[in-house]
Amino acid sequence: MRAALVDSRRMSTNFPSSVFSPRAVAVVGASSNVDSPGHDYVKALVVAGFKGPIYPINPRAPEIMGLTAYPSLTAVPGDVDLVISCIPADGVLSLIEECRAKGVTTLHLFTGRFSETGDARAAELERAVQRAAAAAGVRIIGPNCMGVFDSSTGLSFRPDLPAERGDVAFISQSGNNSVELMLHGAARGLRFSKVVSYGNGLDLTEADFFDFLATDSETRVIGAYIEGTRDGRRLFAALRRCARLKPVVVLKGGRTGAGSRTAASHTAALAGQRQIWSAMLHQAGAVEVATFDELIDVMVGFAFLRNAEQRAESREQTRDSKQQTANSKQRTTVGVVGGGGGRAVQSADVCEEAGLSVPGLPASIRAFLREKAPQLADWVDNPVDQSILAGSGVSGARILDMMLDSAELDALIANVGEDWVLGRPDAIERMGHLVGRFAEIGEKARKPLAFVLGAADSADETKWRAVETGKQRLTDSRLAVYPSVDRAANALARCLRWWSERAP
Amino acid sequence: MRAALVDSRRMSTNFPSSVFSPRAVAVVGASSNVDSPGHDYVKALVVAGFKGPIYPINPRAPEIMGLTAYPSLTAVPGDVDLVISCIPADGVLSLIEECRAKGVTTLHLFTGRFSETGDARAAELERAVQRAAAAAGVRIIGPNCMGVFDSSTGLSFRPDLPAERGDVAFISQSGNNSVELMLHGAARGLRFSKVVSYGNGLDLTEADFFDFLATDSETRVIGAYIEGTRDGRRLFAALRRCARLKPVVVLKGGRTGAGSRTAASHTAALAGQRQIWSAMLHQAGAVEVATFDELIDVMVGFAFLRNAEQRAESREQTRDSKQQTANSKQRTTVGVVGGGGGRAVQSADVCEEAGLSVPGLPASIRAFLREKAPQLADWVDNPVDQSILAGSGVSGARILDMMLDSAELDALIANVGEDWVLGRPDAIERMGHLVGRFAEIGEKARKPLAFVLGAADSADETKWRAVETGKQRLTDSRLAVYPSVDRAANALARCLRWWSERAP
Repeated sequence: MRAALVDSRRMSTNFPSSVFSPRAVAVVGASSNVDSPGHDYVKALVVAGFKGPIYPINPRAPEIMGLTAYPSLTAVPGDVDLVISCIPADGVLSLIEECRAKGVTTLHLFTGRFSETGDARAAELERAVQRAAAAAGVRIIGPNCMGVFDSSTGLSFRPDLPAERGDVAFISQSGNNSVELMLHGAARGLRFSKVVSYGNGLDLTEADFFDFLATDSETRVIGAYIEGTRDGRRLFAALRRCARLKPVVVLKGGRTGAGSRTAASHTAALAGQRQIWSAMLHQAGAVEVATFDELIDVMVGFAFLRNAEQRAESREQTRDSKQQTANSKQRTTVGVVGGGGGRAVQSADVCEEAGLSVPGLPASIRAFLREKAPQLADWVDNPVDQSILAGSGVSGARILDMMLDSAELDALIANVGEDWVLGRPDAIERMGHLVGRFAEIGEKARKPLAFVLGAADSADETKWRAVETGKQRLTDSRLAVYPSVDRAANALARCLRWWSERAP
Repeated sequence: MRAALVDSRRMSTNFPSSVFSPRAVAVVGASSNVDSPGHDYVKALVVAGFKGPIYPINPRAPEIMGLTAYPSLTAVPGDVDLVISCIPADGVLSLIEECRAKGVTTLHLFTGRFSETGDARAAELERAVQRAAAAAGVRIIGPNCMGVFDSSTGLSFRPDLPAERGDVAFISQSGNNSVELMLHGAARGLRFSKVVSYGNGLDLTEADFFDFLATDSETRVIGAYIEGTRDGRRLFAALRRCARLKPVVVLKGGRTGAGSRTAASHTAALAGQRQIWSAMLHQAGAVEVATFDELIDVMVGFAFLRNAEQRAESREQTRDSKQQTANSKQRTTVGVVGGGGGRAVQSADVCEEAGLSVPGLPASIRAFLREKAPQLADWVDNPVDQSILAGSGVSGARILDMMLDSAELDALIANVGEDWVLGRPDAIERMGHLVGRFAEIGEKARKPLAFVLGAADSADETKWRAVETGKQRLTDSRLAVYPSVDRAANALARCLRWWSERAP
């Protein structure tokens, strides 16, 4: 498996390098108006630090953002291999002619108002664009999309995206979903290798990007938002190949026929289509999710849960050795610490409902408690109710640390329990200490460990900052953080199941 | 139904008024140590503005938080009818004697380490406490719980709880869940009439509180977190009576046998127990939820969705008149605006998956578009993709406003789409304008309308503040705000279904 993570060019001979690694980019329809896409694209490239020349194209402006602007693509002095188009749809055919003249190999059409409008003439124009581009040897991204982000080459489609290098990729048929995934994923610690919003997918489409990312050495985890496909067989083949090499998480849009359905709503045909998609994704080895939050949660799990893959494999070996009972061998065991009694009960419930098993406290830890806090030794259980430990001299972090070493537990969840901590004197210091201890344990963890640090939804700035600082402390250590224990349990279960199903 | 909201005393003759309306409160085990419960309870009462005398009881301290302290309960000069106990368990029996001598009618035992420890002697002590209290005519709240909050009388159990008057009540077997519900509920705009954390429920228990709150004129919506009951029949009767008068939302803890299960985990008996609970809650007319987030979401829905009850009734009338088709009469129709195309598709998916129907754009709105923005009139649909409207002169808010008047739509969801807005120049002003328009529409709404304003999870303080300010603008107008469209759709569907099932 590791050996397959070779140079990205091997499996992608048809994929133009100008998509993610252009030598120079021209923005056609670049604008000095700061409230326009034509300005945003230039700014995004500048902010992301694109390494080659950026050529704003504008018939009137002499410069945009300090960069020399040119009246037309053909007026640009140097070579250009990627063009970003922000001009109206009716200018695209002649732009393709200019692209051919200039030797441009990839044209990203932010430009929309083609077939998505439902207008017959617009759809005909789209087909004409397809034919013209094919004849000119120009590959199309879009139309009607945000385009390409690449943290290694400095491509970006919005100035406020997280520009740091990362190993998570996202393929999105929707532009706003690509932005939201990046912003909210970044808040959870995700950093991105490559992101593409491909809109109508007239030429380059989801299967092309899965093929490319399958062997992209900079990409370790792939997420996708897909609304539909023009070639289900090809998509299935690409997904299956990709999911053999790395985790692929897919949110399917239009599961209920949205965007084309009538007031009568669901028909049997649409319901069938949904089942076909789910079956296809499952058979391809991808993880299908149902909501945007779940998409981020599972991507965070694949990105940050430690050694889960090896763990799944070692459990498989144990399974083969038949040392486990029929009951336990089906289910991953999870240890939980932190939060009060109500959180402990909730944690057990949501873990078991997610298909995980929550066994009693390992005997080794109970023996430790019998020595250090004998009055609690028969009381504390798994999940560990933090409030029982108060004043005992044994911390939840200490038990979490011991759980790491227990062979009885496959995975762990640690509730920070910030609502209690933030009600205490010296709250900020306590939060810092607790989260710091958790982060240290997480850093050395050799099994999957998810942290729960609740929604920073307080109107109180001090509390918000404490939660945000704690979250960043954990994500800076590349640890998986979830805003609720049910979301942690679900993501843990889904990632572990995927790894387990792929175990040899 | 309205007529039943009479004076709270009528149905609660056995319920001591000293629980929520004590004339004076003594805190036994009050402490000068700011990091102790004995300090927190005194401070909580002071901060919440308890109107009667507060007597800290401490054998050594002359004053605590500026209040004269007394060496024992019997040394207090005035009458006391509620005692909060923070002393260790072994002092409780003699405290009950003091309570009898002093004429105290309610004793809240924050004091824990009774039967919950699993220790036989602790359990025996708990039974002795029960007998002694019964003999002394002292009602017990707890043991092992946070106790009582009442915004009208100024009772509170933590200094950082939202103290403003409100009409939402919460009954919780868990102390930390009561705190978390209040803090995170407050961030969503909930304000509380009465909250009680009753722990082991030795005497006053969930059924007593449901009975009392059923006719409490200050309480309009009730939430509950329940782990178990000693009297299922009584609980069922109390819940059913309560749920006939006002919405009751219940999170059942220990659904999977947590807290008492062994490593072998689930047994058929426990699975059966869970089904019994679900069936009981459903038959009683309560809404059962599965997670803490869902508990808050549905409580927010019942608290803030406008006129949903009347709407459900008017639909029933329409149903009776048989003017509706067989297809549509089963499902509530929802109109959705805001966010880009991806969000529009997601919105349609999650609404339909939640059991709501998403019909096409009402003809009246399409006719309006044909006049104002003819090029979009055949393209824009429901859900409304905000990005299509850009530059058309027609705003999403305008369409939302028209949806309010459309008889074809029973309920509405408005996506703020803050990730797009916050990427524009003058982002803060735009957010303020958009949210302000939405709030104005929400204030006059005569049908259920849920807003989606995403997680304030950005590490960027400006963005956090913009989202937080927007959320507060909406919640200040008593509008229902959800952090994701799937959570909005689920809460909307659950509230509407409950109202619909109760329609005459």
